Amino acid sequence: MQGARNADGPAPAGPGAAEGGKTAAFLSVEAARARILARLLPTQTEIVPLPEAWGRVSARLVPARLTNPPSDVSAMDGYALRAADGAAGAMLRVIGEAPAGHPFAGTVAPGETVRLFTGSVLPPGADAILLQEDAERHGESVTVRETVAAGQHIRRAGQDFAAGDTLIPAGRRLGARDIGLTAAGNHPWVAVHRRPRVAILATGDEITLPGEAIGPGGIINANAHALAALVRAGGGEPLVLPIVADARDAIAVATGDLRGCDLLVTTGGASVGAHDLVREGLGARGFAPDFWKIAMRPGKPLMFGHAGEVPVLGLPGNPVAAMVCGLLFLLPALARLSGLPGDPPASVPARLGAPVAANDRRADHLRARLSEGPDGGLVATPFPSQDSARLRLLADADALVLRPPLAPALAAGEIVPVLRLDGFGV
Amino acid sequence: MQGARNADGPAPAGPGAAEGGKTAAFLSVEAARARILARLLPTQTEIVPLPEAWGRVSARLVPARLTNPPSDVSAMDGYALRAADGAAGAMLRVIGEAPAGHPFAGTVAPGETVRLFTGSVLPPGADAILLQEDAERHGESVTVRETVAAGQHIRRAGQDFAAGDTLIPAGRRLGARDIGLTAAGNHPWVAVHRRPRVAILATGDEITLPGEAIGPGGIINANAHALAALVRAGGGEPLVLPIVADARDAIAVATGDLRGCDLLVTTGGASVGAHDLVREGLGARGFAPDFWKIAMRPGKPLMFGHAGEVPVLGLPGNPVAAMVCGLLFLLPALARLSGLPGDPPASVPARLGAPVAANDRRADHLRARLSEGPDGGLVATPFPSQDSARLRLLADADALVLRPPLAPALAAGEIVPVLRLDGFGV
Repeated sequence: MQGARNADGPAPAGPGAAEGGKTAAFLSVEAARARILARLLPTQTEIVPLPEAWGRVSARLVPARLTNPPSDVSAMDGYALRAADGAAGAMLRVIGEAPAGHPFAGTVAPGETVRLFTGSVLPPGADAILLQEDAERHGESVTVRETVAAGQHIRRAGQDFAAGDTLIPAGRRLGARDIGLTAAGNHPWVAVHRRPRVAILATGDEITLPGEAIGPGGIINANAHALAALVRAGGGEPLVLPIVADARDAIAVATGDLRGCDLLVTTGGASVGAHDLVREGLGARGFAPDFWKIAMRPGKPLMFGHAGEVPVLGLPGNPVAAMVCGLLFLLPALARLSGLPGDPPASVPARLGAPVAANDRRADHLRARLSEGPDGGLVATPFPSQDSARLRLLADADALVLRPPLAPALAAGEIVPVLRLDGFGV
Repeated sequence: MQGARNADGPAPAGPGAAEGGKTAAFLSVEAARARILARLLPTQTEIVPLPEAWGRVSARLVPARLTNPPSDVSAMDGYALRAADGAAGAMLRVIGEAPAGHPFAGTVAPGETVRLFTGSVLPPGADAILLQEDAERHGESVTVRETVAAGQHIRRAGQDFAAGDTLIPAGRRLGARDIGLTAAGNHPWVAVHRRPRVAILATGDEITLPGEAIGPGGIINANAHALAALVRAGGGEPLVLPIVADARDAIAVATGDLRGCDLLVTTGGASVGAHDLVREGLGARGFAPDFWKIAMRPGKPLMFGHAGEVPVLGLPGNPVAAMVCGLLFLLPALARLSGLPGDPPASVPARLGAPVAANDRRADHLRARLSEGPDGGLVATPFPSQDSARLRLLADADALVLRPPLAPALAAGEIVPVLRLDGFGV
């Protein structure tokens, strides 16, 4: 077993450092993400039936089409009466009852009362509720045992919302509660952004799909379907293209038809220059990358640009690096395409369960286990090995500990930002 | 606007307290959940193609069908050589190259070297890697500029996993990383639990669906589709039954055919005795509730039992209470049906942004906003109104502050457990 030493290559000496004989600018994670997001537009708006709007992003604000409650209603089981009649000891005549959905047709006059239930419409004339447990019923009459106060236990018309109020803003990912609120606002249809369609191209002479023949030195491609699942986690529709060899002509053919795609994600083989081949393969479409070096680990070789109208995100071939870059760049890109801002994934504070070494100039993302500390707070313990070839450790990780460039060494117990990996389909 | 006073009725005096003239045992949230979970069995196992396994629960452990890496490979770009030949200043003859997927056919003899790339198979004879940046290449020869160490920069066969290793345990919700790992383990198919199918029945004389005619005193039903969305969030398939009036015959007809359903969820109208009607409507199927009172707020009237073979979960008609009970009982039930343990939703600690009053004997669930405190930690500020009729406040909440029975008053800044509502489709 290897130690915690990074096996992903030496750090760049700094922005613009020479590497592999070429000089290229190294972008920060934040700058790269901003450049990607700035080039993406939300998909069109479509109308879907309410139940299909779950998980989608609202494209327009959702106004209340009615007032809720539509009129003053009782918040409790009891009796509607005039507060002036509600002194302890008073006796009232029960003139009817009004279950929810069956408002009382008449008016409550002095000395009268109407049996109500939670949600019942308050009948005209009444301005107070006598709670059921404060009432003594004898046939058609009721005795007040606790003096009532006017207005108490009444839910006023519009207390939840009034017609015309904004229930849901545009640009919200709709959860179950939003679906309920949209229903309550009387909307059978919802305007949402179309799900982004993301084509995924895995390239490499050595890779094959599970269940197919594996050549000498060959490995199974984990990236294509892991990224497809990540696209689903981000609310998109993946289109997994057939795997192609490391040859520019094959890449050109595979990417020749990107109709209907909002984004092409490529993931190179592990060989040097994989991105160069993709760049050349896309060249017939007028491809020029916006950038292709980034100061992070795992995941240095990242590329972004456009092939014709279609944005292209080139991820590393290393499966751990591809997935970490997917979290940091592909998920925000999907969010932006879906009509959300594309904020970086939210980090939470955690205490280190083990010391970490000082970081170099690359932002690092340490695979870690989460546990609960004695104070109930989160404890993040990085795995001893951070080898980017260990897919099993990535799958077993609960979080990534975020280590900014040049972050100092930290002792166990210090607080670090972590990106939780549990709970969002990742 | 109402104050923070709970409008959901008075607290029971304690377990077994009298209410509405009847004596019924009040169960705690935890006891009720345990009784529900104890009666549920995981659905059958089905085989699905790998890409469709995302979000599903593994029904069997997934073993590695091959070893990864399949042989010793280079972790870096560079040259394979014998460590004995790797002293600084030595010159070696380049006898070939081995891109990933194209292993070198021969053996590295003394004085020889083979050009390698990240992921290339280490050729026989070689036991060390000379990094590209430590090599000076002149035509067919290479000069060593930094002495190499045997074994460095080599990823050993099986370092990630060996054939037969367990990659994924049974009973794990499969995220994108798991899909990648399963692919890498050479599985085109995955054994997962069938998605639970949950029938949802909303009852009430006063309720209607969005876009349909609303009668006097009528309201739009938010529950059926909010719960259907919650079922989707929990990985199930909802079956939304047509809404029925508060009449036992109509309920009997609506629930007469539950073939293929793993769970029936009912949500009563707001009227008193709604659960009684459902109970009577289900009576023809031999229904007897296991329990139907619970010491919590919002959400007192909760019912659980079986109609024939089908488990029945009766939720409150109040939409806020229905959704909170959905989180606390329906999501764990779905988890159990899906092959997971059905653990209670995980709470996290947060500091109170405002004081809270002492709690009565009912576990309370305060709708709250989350913000970031000065130390980066979570701050939860309960809304001033906790009225369970305010659906909009529920939709706007980021979290529920959990208040156990008889919890003391707390000042702002004290730490409380909160249940986050963001980020899981709720």
